[in-house]
Amino acid sequence: MVASWQSTVETSRNALEAKLKATGFAGQVGHIGEDVLNVTSVPFDRVLTAREIEITELGVGQLLAKLSGGELTSEELTRAFLHRAVIAHELTNCLTDIFFDKAIARAQSVDAEYAKTGKPVGALHGLPISLKNQINIEGEEMNLCYVGWTGRISNVDSALVKCLLQQGAVLYSYTNMPQALFSGETICNLHGRTVNPHNRALAVGGSSGGEGALVAMHGSPLGVGSDIGGSVRIPCAFNGLYGLRPSYDRIPYGSSSNSMEGFSIVPSVLGPMSTSLDGVKAFFRAVVDAEPWRYDPLALHMPWSESAYALKEHGDGKELCFGLVRHNGMVKPDVPYVRALEMLKAALLAQGHKVIDYVPPQTAKGADILTRLFQADGGEDLKRECATSGEPRLGGIFKGQAVPPAISTYEFWQLCAERRDYIAMQLASWEATRDQTGTGRPVDALLCPPAPYPSFRHDDKQDIFYTGICNLCDWPAAVFPVTKVDPAVDKPVERTDFLSDFDRLNHERYDATVYKDIPVSMQLIGRKGEDEAVIRMMEIAVAALKSAA
Amino acid sequence: MVASWQSTVETSRNALEAKLKATGFAGQVGHIGEDVLNVTSVPFDRVLTAREIEITELGVGQLLAKLSGGELTSEELTRAFLHRAVIAHELTNCLTDIFFDKAIARAQSVDAEYAKTGKPVGALHGLPISLKNQINIEGEEMNLCYVGWTGRISNVDSALVKCLLQQGAVLYSYTNMPQALFSGETICNLHGRTVNPHNRALAVGGSSGGEGALVAMHGSPLGVGSDIGGSVRIPCAFNGLYGLRPSYDRIPYGSSSNSMEGFSIVPSVLGPMSTSLDGVKAFFRAVVDAEPWRYDPLALHMPWSESAYALKEHGDGKELCFGLVRHNGMVKPDVPYVRALEMLKAALLAQGHKVIDYVPPQTAKGADILTRLFQADGGEDLKRECATSGEPRLGGIFKGQAVPPAISTYEFWQLCAERRDYIAMQLASWEATRDQTGTGRPVDALLCPPAPYPSFRHDDKQDIFYTGICNLCDWPAAVFPVTKVDPAVDKPVERTDFLSDFDRLNHERYDATVYKDIPVSMQLIGRKGEDEAVIRMMEIAVAALKSAA
Repeated sequence: MVASWQSTVETSRNALEAKLKATGFAGQVGHIGEDVLNVTSVPFDRVLTAREIEITELGVGQLLAKLSGGELTSEELTRAFLHRAVIAHELTNCLTDIFFDKAIARAQSVDAEYAKTGKPVGALHGLPISLKNQINIEGEEMNLCYVGWTGRISNVDSALVKCLLQQGAVLYSYTNMPQALFSGETICNLHGRTVNPHNRALAVGGSSGGEGALVAMHGSPLGVGSDIGGSVRIPCAFNGLYGLRPSYDRIPYGSSSNSMEGFSIVPSVLGPMSTSLDGVKAFFRAVVDAEPWRYDPLALHMPWSESAYALKEHGDGKELCFGLVRHNGMVKPDVPYVRALEMLKAALLAQGHKVIDYVPPQTAKGADILTRLFQADGGEDLKRECATSGEPRLGGIFKGQAVPPAISTYEFWQLCAERRDYIAMQLASWEATRDQTGTGRPVDALLCPPAPYPSFRHDDKQDIFYTGICNLCDWPAAVFPVTKVDPAVDKPVERTDFLSDFDRLNHERYDATVYKDIPVSMQLIGRKGEDEAVIRMMEIAVAALKSAA
Repeated sequence: MVASWQSTVETSRNALEAKLKATGFAGQVGHIGEDVLNVTSVPFDRVLTAREIEITELGVGQLLAKLSGGELTSEELTRAFLHRAVIAHELTNCLTDIFFDKAIARAQSVDAEYAKTGKPVGALHGLPISLKNQINIEGEEMNLCYVGWTGRISNVDSALVKCLLQQGAVLYSYTNMPQALFSGETICNLHGRTVNPHNRALAVGGSSGGEGALVAMHGSPLGVGSDIGGSVRIPCAFNGLYGLRPSYDRIPYGSSSNSMEGFSIVPSVLGPMSTSLDGVKAFFRAVVDAEPWRYDPLALHMPWSESAYALKEHGDGKELCFGLVRHNGMVKPDVPYVRALEMLKAALLAQGHKVIDYVPPQTAKGADILTRLFQADGGEDLKRECATSGEPRLGGIFKGQAVPPAISTYEFWQLCAERRDYIAMQLASWEATRDQTGTGRPVDALLCPPAPYPSFRHDDKQDIFYTGICNLCDWPAAVFPVTKVDPAVDKPVERTDFLSDFDRLNHERYDATVYKDIPVSMQLIGRKGEDEAVIRMMEIAVAALKSAA
């Protein structure tokens, strides 16, 4: 007899429950009512020791310094994060699997190596890192959050895992994501919904929403998500984290699982999500330094460039000119973003940088191309995966829309050519800013909201092209927090000049009291391949904000 | 009344005839009978001045030194190459279009700039460069060798043309290629057949065969071809030229025309073809230094790497270990290649380098994947282009084969995933040579014949996977001449151990007296993105051969 998909779900959830119970950390936090929306400030001191709180709230740079300086063992740190991860999960439903025993053994092994040699194993020596439920680890279940995949055990370490282990990292958990990874919120039949720890009535973001919640709760100092339309940046933004969507094929995707395998024209990329700014650079550099091209045939042979990081092609970063995207021509961002953009502009001007307004041209056309690319198989891939268990299709970003019929391979190629011409037009538009900057260069980067909303009510409508344009054009994009939604200042404004139906809908649903406490973040968008420069310019922007505060 | 495709062809050929006549150079060479197979040594001194012969036979490095040193004007050089190009065409049918007046005006302008500033315009200052009939120049006809495209005037300079002009190059001609660019020989309905100048009874190679003949005849010091399965390397090999298939997206393809637009998974790349070794580096470096990522949204932001060129990741090039591909597991190369491989091996050993045997695994599977990718649209693209004029479909590499039906977009994605897994297997196999080299590194490069035959009789069967594997895996590959077919030494050998039907066919058709005078070349194949290293290692191999001679 074939089990119903619901019974498979139950079995799977019970298994996770049992694993959590076996850690000894389950249930410690006690009852927190559903009316408690913001769980980032629950009284952790009732559950965690002062030492555990102290070390789980350190930044990645501080942690790496202590680990490689022998001030902190990986085992102590790993145990503390394991503890806090269980609490994070109980409050947000962020985890899909844990492998704590393996993590402790790994931490002990890294510590032993250090004791023997006096040297860190690698650039990420002893650091616990959490992974989205698609990055294969040999011997662990890889279900990709499909009910029909439960019980599949991976027989390989993915290329990224090889790089992380080579650099000394400790892996301990998988985190939740939406069905097929196509959503800016996080819900799947297998693991249910992950909620936003800042406001549990709202979307945590997605598709890397499990990471978003876990990291925001300091249940992980650094998580790895994936991004094909905004899936690293949206949960980073909704949770006030630092993150990066790298350019295609700089961080290796090899042997990670994915939906829509073989969809290669706008590839998903893996990227870091962290509570600390320096986590982004630490991750990117460590992975690239591990020579991912040895493990992944698609990984670019582009070593870390110190010259690019020093902004040699951007006037050494002395007088940068940013393009401020106040709106993308399709939908105007909510008022907290207007405030955040002005804060950022003032902060950058105060440091001697320049800012001009910039609206990427023809965004509706780009959004249409991206949508048609994503749906080119007529939903065949998802249909087949759902059929493996009988689980129902969820809508994700296409919620409520009928799936258009599949196009032919010939038509798919025409669409790929259309996309190429579209991004050539975007490049020419960017290049044309050369005449307006006064620096002799086009704008060095764009500053742009990561979404038109700070978050949204569960199951509400989404529009992902604020992030999706970067996937379509292969623009590396960092995300960083600027402020939080504050009902006292973020009052709604009167508007009648709507750019689209969604613009009206988004405006009408805006309510600062509903969106309360949600971080307001910003993207810093660079040009294809300029990942190092994007990281550096984010650091400059964050420092400017700090100076202005 | 709609003109028949044949009448369109006639009009087009007459137009070229008239242009050639207007140069004043047409018909000078007089009658050379079809029985004269090798036309590389026709008595040029009856037609060209001693000075013209002298300067058209200089290498690219010498020419650039003289041009940028003021010893030679671009105008004089350009006029000499124009003259010789007309002769080359009359003997091989290599040109499809010329724009001599524009070239002379450009040369004069470059000279004037030099006279004014005392400085070269760019790294290719004043150098005439010929282009395959797909690289758009604003204001020139771009017919892509399709009858139905005649009369289409390009309204853009392609990204490559922008880079070349920025570096001071002079453009003067388009060269022939096969229908749809899918062949290792060069024949199309619009422009007819280009023959091999070393032996006019044999294939010039393809698809960049017009360049192959023109450059071999010294009608151009440097040509640009494209390569999706070997189309730069095959005509280089058959003509004894130096060439390079760069990694994807290092040389910009933007706004160049192509067949199968939007087929992006194994993209065609542009690469140099030259009579001189230093032409390869000069071209590659000049184009990359022109920052192609400013003009082409797909171009990688990978500046020229002096460190990669210095072989920093290959032990500074002091003790390299090469993988010698004696055969690819599908078809054994003809005896001249056996001789050439031994020459190369001995030359490299004499310089202190190492050589191990290497057979890339599962090549038949790779060839099958590449074929299925190329035919995934069921021939729809070619069918439509032929329908624009009514010209018949030619077979190219698929001659005599029925076109399989188109696969669905979903199936195409599965095939893309299959290709990804296949190239991951190839990478792992390459990495595994680390244990055999004794250098602590995997083999630094492969040395491999560019084809199983030195050339072939017109319209004969082809097998392109000696080159095609590099396109599938994105391995940059250089090609360089080693020797020539010599009937006195390249006697056929007895064989009964055939690897495939084609292996038998190729063995049985081998005849050194038929293949007489054809250059025997070799590929040097590197790893994705290691273009600079490949150029350097080719220089090392060529120097070793010279030392051994």
